[in-house]
Amino acid sequence: MANVTRKIINDPVYGFITIDHPLLFQIIAHPYYQRLRRIHQMAFASLVYPGAVHTRLHHSLGAYHLMCCALGELKNKGVAITAEEELGAKIAILLHDIGHGPFSHALEKTLIEKMHHEKISLLIMQRFNEIFEGKLQLAIDIFTNKYNKPFLHQLVSGQLDVDRMDYLTRDSFFTGVSEGVIGYDRILKMLTVHNDELMVEEKAIYSIEKFLVARRLMYWQVYLHKTVLSAEMMLVKVIARAKELVKNGVQVDCSTPMLDFFLHNPSASDDLENHLDKFCLLDDTDLVSTFKKWMFHQDKILSFLSTSLINRRLYKLKLSPDPIDPVLEKTLKEKICNTLSIDENDAEYYVFSGEAINTTYDPTEESINILFKDGSVKDISQVDNALIHRNLSSPVKKHYICFLNV
Amino acid sequence: MANVTRKIINDPVYGFITIDHPLLFQIIAHPYYQRLRRIHQMAFASLVYPGAVHTRLHHSLGAYHLMCCALGELKNKGVAITAEEELGAKIAILLHDIGHGPFSHALEKTLIEKMHHEKISLLIMQRFNEIFEGKLQLAIDIFTNKYNKPFLHQLVSGQLDVDRMDYLTRDSFFTGVSEGVIGYDRILKMLTVHNDELMVEEKAIYSIEKFLVARRLMYWQVYLHKTVLSAEMMLVKVIARAKELVKNGVQVDCSTPMLDFFLHNPSASDDLENHLDKFCLLDDTDLVSTFKKWMFHQDKILSFLSTSLINRRLYKLKLSPDPIDPVLEKTLKEKICNTLSIDENDAEYYVFSGEAINTTYDPTEESINILFKDGSVKDISQVDNALIHRNLSSPVKKHYICFLNV
Amino acid sequence: MANVTRKIINDPVYGFITIDHPLLFQIIAHPYYQRLRRIHQMAFASLVYPGAVHTRLHHSLGAYHLMCCALGELKNKGVAITAEEELGAKIAILLHDIGHGPFSHALEKTLIEKMHHEKISLLIMQRFNEIFEGKLQLAIDIFTNKYNKPFLHQLVSGQLDVDRMDYLTRDSFFTGVSEGVIGYDRILKMLTVHNDELMVEEKAIYSIEKFLVARRLMYWQVYLHKTVLSAEMMLVKVIARAKELVKNGVQVDCSTPMLDFFLHNPSASDDLENHLDKFCLLDDTDLVSTFKKWMFHQDKILSFLSTSLINRRLYKLKLSPDPIDPVLEKTLKEKICNTLSIDENDAEYYVFSGEAINTTYDPTEESINILFKDGSVKDISQVDNALIHRNLSSPVKKHYICFLNV
Amino acid sequence: MANVTRKIINDPVYGFITIDHPLLFQIIAHPYYQRLRRIHQMAFASLVYPGAVHTRLHHSLGAYHLMCCALGELKNKGVAITAEEELGAKIAILLHDIGHGPFSHALEKTLIEKMHHEKISLLIMQRFNEIFEGKLQLAIDIFTNKYNKPFLHQLVSGQLDVDRMDYLTRDSFFTGVSEGVIGYDRILKMLTVHNDELMVEEKAIYSIEKFLVARRLMYWQVYLHKTVLSAEMMLVKVIARAKELVKNGVQVDCSTPMLDFFLHNPSASDDLENHLDKFCLLDDTDLVSTFKKWMFHQDKILSFLSTSLINRRLYKLKLSPDPIDPVLEKTLKEKICNTLSIDENDAEYYVFSGEAINTTYDPTEESINILFKDGSVKDISQVDNALIHRNLSSPVKKHYICFLNV
Repeated sequence: MANVTRKIINDPVYGFITIDHPLLFQIIAHPYYQRLRRIHQMAFASLVYPGAVHTRLHHSLGAYHLMCCALGELKNKGVAITAEEELGAKIAILLHDIGHGPFSHALEKTLIEKMHHEKISLLIMQRFNEIFEGKLQLAIDIFTNKYNKPFLHQLVSGQLDVDRMDYLTRDSFFTGVSEGVIGYDRILKMLTVHNDELMVEEKAIYSIEKFLVARRLMYWQVYLHKTVLSAEMMLVKVIARAKELVKNGVQVDCSTPMLDFFLHNPSASDDLENHLDKFCLLDDTDLVSTFKKWMFHQDKILSFLSTSLINRRLYKLKLSPDPIDPVLEKTLKEKICNTLSIDENDAEYYVFSGEAINTTYDPTEESINILFKDGSVKDISQVDNALIHRNLSSPVKKHYICFLNV
Repeated sequence: MANVTRKIINDPVYGFITIDHPLLFQIIAHPYYQRLRRIHQMAFASLVYPGAVHTRLHHSLGAYHLMCCALGELKNKGVAITAEEELGAKIAILLHDIGHGPFSHALEKTLIEKMHHEKISLLIMQRFNEIFEGKLQLAIDIFTNKYNKPFLHQLVSGQLDVDRMDYLTRDSFFTGVSEGVIGYDRILKMLTVHNDELMVEEKAIYSIEKFLVARRLMYWQVYLHKTVLSAEMMLVKVIARAKELVKNGVQVDCSTPMLDFFLHNPSASDDLENHLDKFCLLDDTDLVSTFKKWMFHQDKILSFLSTSLINRRLYKLKLSPDPIDPVLEKTLKEKICNTLSIDENDAEYYVFSGEAINTTYDPTEESINILFKDGSVKDISQVDNALIHRNLSSPVKKHYICFLNV
Repeated sequence: MANVTRKIINDPVYGFITIDHPLLFQIIAHPYYQRLRRIHQMAFASLVYPGAVHTRLHHSLGAYHLMCCALGELKNKGVAITAEEELGAKIAILLHDIGHGPFSHALEKTLIEKMHHEKISLLIMQRFNEIFEGKLQLAIDIFTNKYNKPFLHQLVSGQLDVDRMDYLTRDSFFTGVSEGVIGYDRILKMLTVHNDELMVEEKAIYSIEKFLVARRLMYWQVYLHKTVLSAEMMLVKVIARAKELVKNGVQVDCSTPMLDFFLHNPSASDDLENHLDKFCLLDDTDLVSTFKKWMFHQDKILSFLSTSLINRRLYKLKLSPDPIDPVLEKTLKEKICNTLSIDENDAEYYVFSGEAINTTYDPTEESINILFKDGSVKDISQVDNALIHRNLSSPVKKHYICFLNV
Repeated sequence: MANVTRKIINDPVYGFITIDHPLLFQIIAHPYYQRLRRIHQMAFASLVYPGAVHTRLHHSLGAYHLMCCALGELKNKGVAITAEEELGAKIAILLHDIGHGPFSHALEKTLIEKMHHEKISLLIMQRFNEIFEGKLQLAIDIFTNKYNKPFLHQLVSGQLDVDRMDYLTRDSFFTGVSEGVIGYDRILKMLTVHNDELMVEEKAIYSIEKFLVARRLMYWQVYLHKTVLSAEMMLVKVIARAKELVKNGVQVDCSTPMLDFFLHNPSASDDLENHLDKFCLLDDTDLVSTFKKWMFHQDKILSFLSTSLINRRLYKLKLSPDPIDPVLEKTLKEKICNTLSIDENDAEYYVFSGEAINTTYDPTEESINILFKDGSVKDISQVDNALIHRNLSSPVKKHYICFLNV
C-alpha cells in the first residue's frame, strides 16, 4: 500500500472513504492498527442484534471520514486550517480508539486493570510518533487538547465530536435500529468556529436535539439492553473467576500466549509501555477461543460461565428504577446455592446486582454551543422552547439484578 | 382494474403496497380518488425542498399500507378483528384525506370557507356509500368513532395513528430530511389493544419519544420553515385579493370552470353536498394555472402576487419568540406604500404578521398509553425519566412578520 | 438569493446539493428556470408509479451535483480543469434540459412542432448569455461540443454523462424500482481523461455493465411500461384532436393564454426565438388544467380523451415482438365505430398502433472507452468476456396496439 | 426463549425477522446453531470490504425470512402449501448452511477433507431429527429433494433460491457494493408454481436478468477480488503447512482442543458422524487465535504465513485471462528461494498459481423458467431479446498467480 497515493474503501454507511496521505496508509497498515479488525465495536450487542458485528477498525475509519468532511466544511466557511493541522486532526481521530482492548468498554479496567482506553491510545500514539520520527506530534497535541485551536480537539472529543457521530450512525446502521439515525450530514454542514471553539449554527438546533434524543434511545434500547448487559456482565464474571483461580494457584491456561501473559501478570498494567507489543496483539478472538478451552476446565464455575457465553445461555436480567431489594438478591442466591450445590461465597457468580447509568446531556461537563446570527452564543439547553432541559441533564440511573434462572 | 383480484403498487417508501379487495379497487379507480394525484401533500414545501412533490394519493395509499400492517400485527397478537372490520378500517384510512382541497392545509377554510377537510371527507364517504350501496357504512362508523371498537378509530385518527406515521415517514423521505425518520415498523410491532383501546407495549417507549421529537423537528424545520410559510401565506393573500375583487365587481376569470364556480359562489360552501361533483374536480393545477393567467390581470396586486408565486419571488419572513412590534409592522407598511405607490388599505397584501403554533405532545387532548407488563397503563408523559414532559405539552407559539423586501 | 454566497439544498437522493457561485444563483432564480418546477421529469409515469412526480428542476439540480462530483474527482486525479471551465460545465448541465416543454419527451415535437428540446435549450442559453453579458459563452461552447476539451462535453452529453447517471438514479429512487439503481458514486470515482476524452478505469467494467443493464431494465419496466405508454400516446392524441379542431375552425379555448397562443399559432415554432418568453411560461399545469376545461367541450372526442386522462381511464395497450396484424387493428376500429357510433375517420383516436424502440448499447453511436493499466483503450463491448455484446448493440423494437376496450 | 411464542429480530437488511414456532426457537437456541455466530459469511472479504463481517447465522436467518415471504406470496396466489410443509421448508433453509466449518468455502475440503458442507448440513439435520424426535423429517426430505413438491426444494436450493437472494442482498449490503443489489422483493412477488415446479411470471424477466448480472458483478468484484483471493489462498497454505508439519512429526499446537483434534486426526472426516460434537464447536476464532499462537512457532513458514494473515501482509495476486506462464512462476520461485534462503521444495508456500471460475448462468445445470400468460414456459435464455445468452452460459475462467513480493 506504501506507494499508492490514493485509496478508496467501500463503506456501506458513507459509500466511499478516501485515504490520500502516505502517513495515513502507513498507520493503517501497521499491525497495531490492523488488530482493530478483530475487536467488535459493540462487544456482545450482536447477541441481540445479529448485524452488530462491525469492528473498531471500521468505526475508526468512519470517524476519520467524518473528520475529513467536517474539516472540508469548515475550510469552505473560511476557517483557517493548515494542511498540517488537517493531517494532525485526521491522525488523532484515526487513532482515538487504538487503545481499546478485547470487547472494548465491556472489559475496560477488568482485563487490563486501572487503565482507561484513552490513556492506552495515547501510549500507542507516542509509540507511533517514535516509529514515524515525530510526525505525530501535532496529532498528539490535538488529542490531548494542548494545541492552540481547541476546536480541533473538540472535533475529536467533545459533546459533538465525529466519534459520537460515527458510532451513533454506524451502530444504528448495523443493528438495524433505524431510530438511532442522526442527521450527521446536516450537523456537519452546520458546524462553525467562533473564538476558536466549535459551535453549531442556529438552524441546526432541531438536528442537535434529535442527535441527543437518538443517543438516549440507543443507550436504553441497545447499549444497555438487558440481554446485552447480562452477557457483558457475565463476561466480567468469567474474567474475575479466572483471576481468582490464578490467585489461588489453580492452573488456568488461555488459548493464546498474549492473553496468558496478561491474566498471569496483572501488574503488567502498571507498566504497560513495556508490554505494548503484547497488548497490541490482544483482541476478541483471544477471549472467545479461551472460553472455548475453558468450557472443559475442571473448575465448575469457570466452565459454566464459559459454556454459557459460547452457547448464549444468558442469565436473566431485570431493570428497575429503584434499588434492588437486598432480600430478593439474598433469596435468589440461597436458591441457587441449594439447587446447584454451590458454596455461598461463589453465589456472586450466579446472582449479582448493579447500576446502569446514562446522561442524555450534561451541560456542566461539556456544552454544545449554538452560534446565533446576531453573534450571540447560547448553550443548547438555554435556547427558547428547549427540548433539552433540566430533566435530561441529570443522569438516569437504572438498577439491575442479573441471575441464573434455575 | 375491476376484474383484477390483487394489484401491487411500487412505493419508494415501503417497497410494495398490495390492494386485494374489489371494493378497494373501485374506490381508488373512482375520479374522486384519482383527483388526489393532483394535490400535493405538502403544498408549497417543494419551493424549499424540491423533492417534496409527492401527492395526497400517495400519502393515502401509504397510510392504507400501514393500516394493513397494523391490523396484521394486532391479529397476530390475538386481537379479534373480523374481515368486515378490517375492510372498514382500510377504507376509512384510504378516504381520510379525500376531502382535502387544492393545496390542502395551506388553503383550508380559505377557498372553501368554514369547511374543515374532515367534514368534506365524511361527505364524500357518504356519497361513496350511496354509490356502493351501503358497503361503506362500517368505514364511516369507524371514521366518526361511532363503532364499538375504539382502537379502530384510533388507528385512523389519534396521537399514534397510521396517518401521522405515514406523513412523517413520507414527508421525511421526500424532503430528504432524514432526521424526521421514525421507527414506524417498530411502533407497529409494539401496538396492542387493551380494553378496546389502542396502546403500545412498554418497550416501545423510546420509539414513541423519538416519534414525538421527529414530529417536532419536522414542524419547525419543514412544515413551518420560514420560506414555506411565506409562500403559503402569499397563497392565502392572492385568494383573498381575488375574492375582494370579485366582491367589488371586478372581473376575475379563473383558468377552469370549477375554480370559477367556487370563487364566484362563496356561499357554495354552506351547501357543499350539492356541489360535491364540482369540488371533486378541484386540485392544485386549477390554482397554479389560474395564477399564470392572473399574472396578466390588470389589478396590480393580484398580478404581483400571482407572478411572485409563479416565479418564486417570495416575501421575507422573520420568526420571533416575541409578538411582532406593531411599530415595525407600521413602518414596513409605510415604506412599501411609498416605494410602490400603494394605497394604505392595500398594504396588508405586502406586509402582514401572524403566529405559527405547534404542540409537541398534549396529553390533555389525546394520549399515548403505554401498557406495562404488569397490566398497568400510563401516559407516555408519566413514565419514569420521561423525555416528554411538561415543557413539551404546552404549545409553542412563534410570531412572524412577512413582507415584501423593497 | 443574490447576496448569498453558498446555499445547500436538501435532496433525498444525494443528501445535500451545494450551490456556491453567484451566477449559478442568478440562473436558478430566473423565472425561465423556476418553470422547470412545474414540468414532471417522467410525464405520466406517475400514473403507474405514484412516487414518480419529481420534476425537471430536481433532475437538473441532481445532474449538476454529479457534475460537481465528477469535476472534483478528475481534478483530484490531476486532470487540468480551470475555474472557468468548471463553472462552464456546471452551467451547461444546469441548463441542458431547460428547453423541455410540458410533459417533456411525451409531447416533444407534438405541441411545439419540429423543435427538439436540445435546440430550445440552446436558444434559452443564448438568451441567458445576453442577459448575463456573455458569461455563458464557455458553457454554450461545452454544450455544443465546440470547446477544445471534449471530455467536458462528454460529461454533459455522452454514453456516460451525468445526465443519464442522474435520471437513472433519480427515476429509480422515485419510482421505487430499486433494480434501476446504478453505482453512480463508483463510476464517478473511476472516471478518467485520456487524450482529452472521457474514459473509465479498467476496474469499473462491471459497474458499467451494470449501468447499461439497469438502463435497459428501466426502459422496458418503467419508461415503456404499457400503461405509461398508453397514457402518453393518449396525450399525443388529445393535442392532435385539438389541433385538428382548430384547423377546422372549431373554437377550442385553453385554460391559459400561453397554451392558447401555441395551439392557435403552430407556425410559432418556426420562429421560437421571438416567442421564447411565452414558451418559458408553458408547463404541465397548462395542459392538465386545459384538459379539465375540455372535459366539458362539445366535441365528443376531445372531451372523451380529456376526461379519460384526468380520471385515469386509459386505453388498453398490448406489446408484441411482431408487427401488429392490420386485420386486428381494422377489426378493433370497426367494433369501436359500431359501439360508440363514431365516424370511421375518427377511429384513429380510439385505436392505433406504433413502435417502442430501445437500444441497450450502440458502440457505433457513442462509445464507452475503458482505459487499461497498460495504457491501452478498448470499447466496453470489446473487453474479455463482455456481457455487452452483439446482442445488445442492435435496437430492440416492440410493436404495440393501443385501444379503447369496449 | 423456550416459552416465548413470537420473537422479532432486528435486521438492518429487512427490518424485522419474525420467529413464531417453538421448534424454530429450539433449533436456533441450540449450541450447534449458535456456533454460526462465529463463522463469517464471507471469510476474508472483510480485509478488502471492512463492513463484510456478517455471519453465517445472520445469513441463515435472512434466508429464512425470505422463505417466509416466498411461502406467503405463493399461498396468496393459491398454491397449496400445508402448515407442515411450511415449517419443513423454513427449517430446511434455516439449517442449509449449518454444516459450514471455519471460514466456510475458503477452507472447505481443506480442514475437513473430502466433506462438502451440504453433506455435513445433512448429518447435523439428522442429528437434530433425533434430538427433536422425528420432527425434522419433512425438512430433510425437502432439503434432499425427496419430497413430492419439488418447488419447496427449489426454494431452498436452485437457480433462484432464497439462499442466493439473501446472500447477494446481504453481501451487497454489508460490503457497501450497492451494485450487487437485486430486486429480491419484486422477484418474490413474481414467483409462481406450475406443475409443482418453481417459476417466475413473465413480467419478472428484467428483474431476473438483473439478478444474474448482479451475481456476476459480485463474483468478479467481491468474491474473487484479487486481494480476497490472495488472503483465502494463504489461509489454505497455512493449514497445508501445519498438516505437513504434523505428518513430519513436528509439534504443532492449536489454541483450542477442537481444532487440535481435527488437525491431528485427518481421518476423522471419514467418520464425521462420530465427531459431530467436536465439529460443531469449530469456528473462525479457533483458527484466528491459532494463527496468533503460530506467529511464534519455530517453523519459519508456519510462522510467516500466520503473521502475514494476522497483520494483513498479503501476497500479490495477478489475474489473467490466459494461463500463467510456467517460466514466470519458476523465476518467481527461484527469486524467493534466493532472497529468503528457502528450500526449493518449500517455494510453493510463497509462489503458486491457480484458477478462479464463475458461470453467470448455465441453463444446462439448473434453469430459470419463465411462465408466460398464455401458459407456455421458456428458459430465461430463450426469451425474446435475451440478455442472458450464449456468452453467459459458459464458465469464465481467470488464471492467477499469487506470490510474496520481495
